[in-house]
Amino acid sequence: MPTYKLMYFNIKGLGESIRWLFAYAGVDFEDQRVSADEWKALKPTMPFNQLPVLEVDGKRVNQSTAICRYLAKQFGLAGKDDWENLEIDAIIDTISDLRTKIVSAAHERVAEAKAEKLKLAEETTELFIGRLEKIVKANGGHLVGGKITWADIIFVATLEIVNPRMGRDIVEKAEGLKALRHKVQSLPGIKAWLAKRPNTEH
Amino acid sequence: MPTYKLMYFNIKGLGESIRWLFAYAGVDFEDQRVSADEWKALKPTMPFNQLPVLEVDGKRVNQSTAICRYLAKQFGLAGKDDWENLEIDAIIDTISDLRTKIVSAAHERVAEAKAEKLKLAEETTELFIGRLEKIVKANGGHLVGGKITWADIIFVATLEIVNPRMGRDIVEKAEGLKALRHKVQSLPGIKAWLAKRPNTEH
Repeated sequence: MPTYKLMYFNIKGLGESIRWLFAYAGVDFEDQRVSADEWKALKPTMPFNQLPVLEVDGKRVNQSTAICRYLAKQFGLAGKDDWENLEIDAIIDTISDLRTKIVSAAHERVAEAKAEKLKLAEETTELFIGRLEKIVKANGGHLVGGKITWADIIFVATLEIVNPRMGRDIVEKAEGLKALRHKVQSLPGIKAWLAKRPNTEH
Repeated sequence: MPTYKLMYFNIKGLGESIRWLFAYAGVDFEDQRVSADEWKALKPTMPFNQLPVLEVDGKRVNQSTAICRYLAKQFGLAGKDDWENLEIDAIIDTISDLRTKIVSAAHERVAEAKAEKLKLAEETTELFIGRLEKIVKANGGHLVGGKITWADIIFVATLEIVNPRMGRDIVEKAEGLKALRHKVQSLPGIKAWLAKRPNTEH
């Protein structure tokens, strides 16, 4: 088993999905949480000056979704063939689009731009959650292939990020997605992580 | 060989990278270009109401990057192992981040927000192109693994999208990346596609 170190800030943000995958698999990793002071010195040494970065036996790589896909493959959470992996990747990028629209609206400081972005975030949420709910209902309670994959885990981890920014639970009326959240949060490794992880606001 | 149909608008946009992969591989596909009028009726029938969508033997899937990853695998443009695929995926998402920042700045209509976004686009371009240039030079003229992968093709196809929006050639001073562009554009399938494709402004 390789040695893993995740470098990220002391927030959930783009790092928490990666932590959930380690937790699911019961695989040890160093959960380095970089402070603002440490980041000043560290930033120019990181690939593309960004976090999260994963070190695998000392080799560094950036980009949270790429890291999740790699770990999912190692931990038995990928699809059973190329087509299932395509379906998973499409769902993952769709979730990422939704997340980006919501986070970008929440962070926008220019009033006129923010109003437009909030409207788009609301419309996208309604459409995407409706479609994802249909997919889960047609798929035995999972997003792809009728079984647990990293798409399920990343979706549920993403709800933690987007719900506070929308000021509500965006799956409140989607029974299938609510059941999926309960299922994922009840997985032994995830459940243990939720109980023991550092308590952070974001 | 399956039957492929790409559904997208009559622009390069998010569909052109997919077309380049078919062209590279010499694989036939129906290049359906949806007009604004047709789109009104088609939109609600598409997964997540978006294009591009690829049909493979009639099965539909959305998300351009997911589609490219799948086709790259079928066409021998993926990495040789999980680690190379992780490196490719990280580069692909880094290119996508750069593209998003540039396109988002170009499309922003609110003046104050646009100024901020243009500044971010300039800074990100300088940093990312500098780092990608180092990677290409350390890597035998390619982005990953010292050989052609879909990361090379998507990078070069993306230059067509971002350069007009930046008003300049962003790899002008990056000799390694310029050589990579020349190499990719000279691949027989890509070269033939560039000569025969519909002429579109965007």
